[in-house]
Amino acid sequence: MTFPAPLTGVVPPLCTPLTPEREVDVPSLLRLVDHLVGAGVHGLFVLGSTSEAAFLTDAQRRRVVEAVAGHVGGQLPVLAGVIDMTTPRVLDHVRAVTAAGAEAVVVTAPFYARTHPSEIVHHYRRTAALSPVPVIAYDIPVAVHTKLPPELVLGLAGDGVLAGVKDSSGDLAAFRELVTGARAHPGFAVLTGSELIADAALALGADGAVPGLANVDPHGYVRLYRQCRAGDWEGARAEQDRLCALFGLTGAGDPARMGGSSSALGAFKAALRLRGVIDCPVTAEPQVPLSGEETEKVAKFLASAGLL
Amino acid sequence: MTFPAPLTGVVPPLCTPLTPEREVDVPSLLRLVDHLVGAGVHGLFVLGSTSEAAFLTDAQRRRVVEAVAGHVGGQLPVLAGVIDMTTPRVLDHVRAVTAAGAEAVVVTAPFYARTHPSEIVHHYRRTAALSPVPVIAYDIPVAVHTKLPPELVLGLAGDGVLAGVKDSSGDLAAFRELVTGARAHPGFAVLTGSELIADAALALGADGAVPGLANVDPHGYVRLYRQCRAGDWEGARAEQDRLCALFGLTGAGDPARMGGSSSALGAFKAALRLRGVIDCPVTAEPQVPLSGEETEKVAKFLASAGLL
Amino acid sequence: MTFPAPLTGVVPPLCTPLTPEREVDVPSLLRLVDHLVGAGVHGLFVLGSTSEAAFLTDAQRRRVVEAVAGHVGGQLPVLAGVIDMTTPRVLDHVRAVTAAGAEAVVVTAPFYARTHPSEIVHHYRRTAALSPVPVIAYDIPVAVHTKLPPELVLGLAGDGVLAGVKDSSGDLAAFRELVTGARAHPGFAVLTGSELIADAALALGADGAVPGLANVDPHGYVRLYRQCRAGDWEGARAEQDRLCALFGLTGAGDPARMGGSSSALGAFKAALRLRGVIDCPVTAEPQVPLSGEETEKVAKFLASAGLL
Amino acid sequence: MTFPAPLTGVVPPLCTPLTPEREVDVPSLLRLVDHLVGAGVHGLFVLGSTSEAAFLTDAQRRRVVEAVAGHVGGQLPVLAGVIDMTTPRVLDHVRAVTAAGAEAVVVTAPFYARTHPSEIVHHYRRTAALSPVPVIAYDIPVAVHTKLPPELVLGLAGDGVLAGVKDSSGDLAAFRELVTGARAHPGFAVLTGSELIADAALALGADGAVPGLANVDPHGYVRLYRQCRAGDWEGARAEQDRLCALFGLTGAGDPARMGGSSSALGAFKAALRLRGVIDCPVTAEPQVPLSGEETEKVAKFLASAGLL
Repeated sequence: MTFPAPLTGVVPPLCTPLTPEREVDVPSLLRLVDHLVGAGVHGLFVLGSTSEAAFLTDAQRRRVVEAVAGHVGGQLPVLAGVIDMTTPRVLDHVRAVTAAGAEAVVVTAPFYARTHPSEIVHHYRRTAALSPVPVIAYDIPVAVHTKLPPELVLGLAGDGVLAGVKDSSGDLAAFRELVTGARAHPGFAVLTGSELIADAALALGADGAVPGLANVDPHGYVRLYRQCRAGDWEGARAEQDRLCALFGLTGAGDPARMGGSSSALGAFKAALRLRGVIDCPVTAEPQVPLSGEETEKVAKFLASAGLL
Repeated sequence: MTFPAPLTGVVPPLCTPLTPEREVDVPSLLRLVDHLVGAGVHGLFVLGSTSEAAFLTDAQRRRVVEAVAGHVGGQLPVLAGVIDMTTPRVLDHVRAVTAAGAEAVVVTAPFYARTHPSEIVHHYRRTAALSPVPVIAYDIPVAVHTKLPPELVLGLAGDGVLAGVKDSSGDLAAFRELVTGARAHPGFAVLTGSELIADAALALGADGAVPGLANVDPHGYVRLYRQCRAGDWEGARAEQDRLCALFGLTGAGDPARMGGSSSALGAFKAALRLRGVIDCPVTAEPQVPLSGEETEKVAKFLASAGLL
Repeated sequence: MTFPAPLTGVVPPLCTPLTPEREVDVPSLLRLVDHLVGAGVHGLFVLGSTSEAAFLTDAQRRRVVEAVAGHVGGQLPVLAGVIDMTTPRVLDHVRAVTAAGAEAVVVTAPFYARTHPSEIVHHYRRTAALSPVPVIAYDIPVAVHTKLPPELVLGLAGDGVLAGVKDSSGDLAAFRELVTGARAHPGFAVLTGSELIADAALALGADGAVPGLANVDPHGYVRLYRQCRAGDWEGARAEQDRLCALFGLTGAGDPARMGGSSSALGAFKAALRLRGVIDCPVTAEPQVPLSGEETEKVAKFLASAGLL
Repeated sequence: MTFPAPLTGVVPPLCTPLTPEREVDVPSLLRLVDHLVGAGVHGLFVLGSTSEAAFLTDAQRRRVVEAVAGHVGGQLPVLAGVIDMTTPRVLDHVRAVTAAGAEAVVVTAPFYARTHPSEIVHHYRRTAALSPVPVIAYDIPVAVHTKLPPELVLGLAGDGVLAGVKDSSGDLAAFRELVTGARAHPGFAVLTGSELIADAALALGADGAVPGLANVDPHGYVRLYRQCRAGDWEGARAEQDRLCALFGLTGAGDPARMGGSSSALGAFKAALRLRGVIDCPVTAEPQVPLSGEETEKVAKFLASAGLL
């Protein structure tokens, strides 16, 4: 298939189900894909932050892309994260994920090293020059400790280096600047990574959403997207309110015992298990697993949202 | 050889010379090793931040360890960084670098993911459990955005999980807490990563130093170490003052054009080229190279320090 | 007048015009008040960040409140910031501004000192207990380096400690949590401090907006507010787009020469002078004044927005 | 007396004893002064961070300076902090504290507002131009969220704007740059604000120390200073080790209940009460008081250090 320009709709960043031994659980992964595709999502994003890409070995990453790309076979676009510190390492991942079937790559700013905006620009130019598939920028300051400036992203959009941006910065004012600037670049996709203000992002012109919570409730986000496209802002707000309440499950883990990643990703997986989609809720090391009591909290959020 | 307990002395984090095509320049690397060993350093640390480990592909990392470990053949300890985001990925590097001959691994806190101290502890325990060689903690908040709390490090020292710590945090008060606490753990090495306050760190009881600038002037740091060990604090302060002045070369790159990594690592490599140790000063992408004028600045610092 | 519960509408944070000698220019200040009231704003907020409260002496602060409160005489609510580091100093300001006629006080989290959430709670409780007028929380992490957690604010709303919150955090997801939680507290006002996403904030249920740019274009924000209240989301988005473009004037100052405060507040004042509202565009020390060329840029933004 | 150039020795930042009603307890304050002067300190610094200056009203600040300056009557230099956000407010404090007898003023970088280095320079120039007494820069990034660059401080030293710097940044490498650069400016004082690395700072050439813990154990810091001046580095290290252990009392407060300021300043005051110097250990609002159990911990630290 030709990669859509711009990419639009709901593109969930897939959780990566693991076995109790912490290997990729391919049957569970494919059930998750079916769960999402069946709900009407418009694309699949593997190896993102929600996918625990930072925790997966190169072999595991490859297995994920092969399994998902092989399963959906061109029915809908498959994007893959190539999360690593700098250009040479990212390029190795680009080669691996495109060989495994990814139709676009999602690239963060460099991290670990202290970079200058000119180096971020060079990073994207160089990656795009050598990538056989479109490059989408991934703006996630909580992870890489750099915010991609809107004018930098728009400059690269104008030069045809980037095919889109996934904005997980939480900064809606900067996001608006992207949306406004992107009007000059019709094939460029502006996607929000937010679970909580997807309606607002779509209202001001976003092309789509990449919400981690869509693993748990893909029907909700597809409904929300359709309402926004139809101009049903009242309905969209009500749906978003329901999803915001559901998002409370990401706080199920005790912050005295674990970090935000353990709690949020653990809760997504617990919810997928409770909904019968995956077999095992384990997360990768060194993350801390949810306790039975914390899993009970997740179940209550599901019940309140009408998902159990 | 048996890995020393504790590790002591000057252990430079080796620059990784590259060819103009940005492949590992092994002959230059081995000349750098000879330059350091000839100056009397006490160990070699490859694949650290100064080594551009964040920029090297896995194949390049392996080549570096093989070349250096093969060359020094047990004459002095070879440590290797295994810099990556989380436990499973770090363990892959541990396997690779120990197969290639590394005698200890140097491990940062997890990054990219948001972690809790309990997860950092688990990360080190798990890594040490599966590593065939000693594990040294690498405290580098400027890169990983987490400071390792001294009590966490000392707890792991007490449990035999860690064989030492390289402290690049710049926080001498916390470093002192490590030194004081480590008196209870005789085989545990407390090493400073600072170029600028190595004398102060040694005065208060550090076991050694891991200064990037020792690539450029290993004789200076070896002299400084010997002066400190001999209690010649006046001499040590004068030597440190000279080295601090020399360190000014790391600011040769224009901050309006490049990040701190490009400037500092570019200057180290420019100095090594000017001193005739390596062939090519190029740094890995997306770093910005020094201009001719900026390289001139580096030359002036070398001249002032009596190194040209 | 009775202070409205909840406070609603457009409540501009007034610039504080100064004379060339940097004394409060009361005639210009009153012309600014008339300019705003004439445009239909719903309240006036003096001594906020936009007012350069951090730069005004106690005597100047008093003069501002007396002048404004005396001039509008109960026609519309006058709120005053009481910006200072801790409870005892804030309480001194509360006494001063209420004696001068303020009808509500706007209180940030403590700053300079390192505080705990329980201390922030105590700060608000104690301030409210001793304030003769309603207390509104001012969430401005860029200035005080603490984000007020929504659940903390809502807890204080539930206890009747706070009458509202002005959110200048830029975090729309947290803002939504405030709006949703505030449904249980009907008299509590949730106000956005954003110039750029006021439409989105109002769409999801905000009671009003406190945009600094409303000094320059109060008619625009009043129009935007009315469109949102009428459910004219298309019209609101177009108006907001125009205001976002106008907001570009805050970047008129060269970042190599001055900080963000000098540039943004200098540009607001330059615009007010160009529009004939105030006499002199000077800002308080140590801020850097805009150059002639930079003022020209401001003029171009005004012209593009149809304001010259 | 003429203010010393440079200022040298131990200059404790005085705690401000309060009554149970949180008014300044002048008799306790004067007993604290006598306690310090009797131990041989070389100057007194009132209204610093340790003094809870951020919590004291203007009337309280004035009372403190009048009491202390009146009591020591020119026997030793009295410095006063003029901690506030920007130049005009700082100048008001300069007028007040010098009228009350302060012989030098201690000035932080601006805070709350977002400033540029050129604005920091202007802030110091303007303050010094209007101050009747010498100006000392106060580098305390943990409070003001800006680090004073060494070259900025040294430039102002060279121009005669600053008479010294108190460095509470914890960055010994930058401190060394100050010490080295200050050799060109003989009357300029470089003082460390660290309790924990005072020996290291003095070893590399600091003129003196301003340690909050000297309230509790002034004899210890005076001894340490004399040992360093005499070149007795072994003795100094042992004394510093004892003081580092004693500093553990600042962690007496439970971090789940209170911020760092409540714990550290509460512990200093608890220790002063236990040692019989002041009457009441209360701290200003909104700080949380230490519990009985936490005060017990403080007592144990005192006992271990031989101070009870």
